[in-house]
Amino acid sequence: MSIVGIGIDVVPVARFAEALARTPSLADRLFTAGERVSASGEARSAESLAARFAAKEALAKALGAGGGMLWTDAEVLVDDVGRPSLLVRGTVAARADSLGVAHWHVSLSHDGGIAAATVIAES
Amino acid sequence: MSIVGIGIDVVPVARFAEALARTPSLADRLFTAGERVSASGEARSAESLAARFAAKEALAKALGAGGGMLWTDAEVLVDDVGRPSLLVRGTVAARADSLGVAHWHVSLSHDGGIAAATVIAES
Amino acid sequence: MSIVGIGIDVVPVARFAEALARTPSLADRLFTAGERVSASGEARSAESLAARFAAKEALAKALGAGGGMLWTDAEVLVDDVGRPSLLVRGTVAARADSLGVAHWHVSLSHDGGIAAATVIAES
Repeated sequence: MSIVGIGIDVVPVARFAEALARTPSLADRLFTAGERVSASGEARSAESLAARFAAKEALAKALGAGGGMLWTDAEVLVDDVGRPSLLVRGTVAARADSLGVAHWHVSLSHDGGIAAATVIAES
Repeated sequence: MSIVGIGIDVVPVARFAEALARTPSLADRLFTAGERVSASGEARSAESLAARFAAKEALAKALGAGGGMLWTDAEVLVDDVGRPSLLVRGTVAARADSLGVAHWHVSLSHDGGIAAATVIAES
Repeated sequence: MSIVGIGIDVVPVARFAEALARTPSLADRLFTAGERVSASGEARSAESLAARFAAKEALAKALGAGGGMLWTDAEVLVDDVGRPSLLVRGTVAARADSLGVAHWHVSLSHDGGIAAATVIAES
């Protein structure tokens, strides 16, 4: 295997929360229904959403994206021990396939008002 | 080889320093004796400890940890040119072995009150 | 292939901008002529330069650098869709060759006063 691309993104949580508050339709455009609720079924916090947005930005960077992908075609899933993974479909899967991506790796962080994510696309 | 898992963690240094000051036993639980002193033998600074804590968090994320690991079973070593590496033992080594991890890669950063680390576990 | 080294660096943009303002020769020492202008030919912003500095720091960490490399021997290039890549020459290429680095991966981020970069050196 080899590395197809990598991405990092850092998101100030306060700015991201303001953007979500200012544009109510933004959350629908950025996140799937599943991403908007936590494992316990409550609305996901702004900082947790900011980390997911960072993951999608990092994924787009890993694909060298020049646009044309839908934010909701990449989804951050969380398993029963809280480990995140990426699920891609549609526009994002098409671009990933064209580059030979076989495995995605993702990690999220949020603390003290800063959300961050890193992604590696592996062939 | 392939990538088993990746991790990123961002730690605000001021919050971490407050936690260490509030709970004197915390440093012993998080760090080995070797990690608590710098190469020159002085007590390691809060920001340098925060970066090491970020590295341990990033390592735990790379292993998809669901608990059961001791913080002191992962240790950040530094060679004579200042390059960090990870040494794992006990609970952490057991989990790493079960996932087939053969090589660890780690990088640390701290500047302007923000400590960060990234880890890749490679098979 | 395998991973030779990884690097992460976080740079507070305000501090970096102050350093550039205080020491006019610093920009020449850190950046190539091409890096100092944007794709549209204007002087690159402080936050964009800070992200490039973070990339060079991350690259140095990936090489386990103990000094002896010139900042301008690593250059951040950007393609027509904005994807960054690393070009190395001279002192940096010599060290990379000695470690068997065949491919570089880089990602940049800047938002809310924080610039960050991550680098992977792959054999």
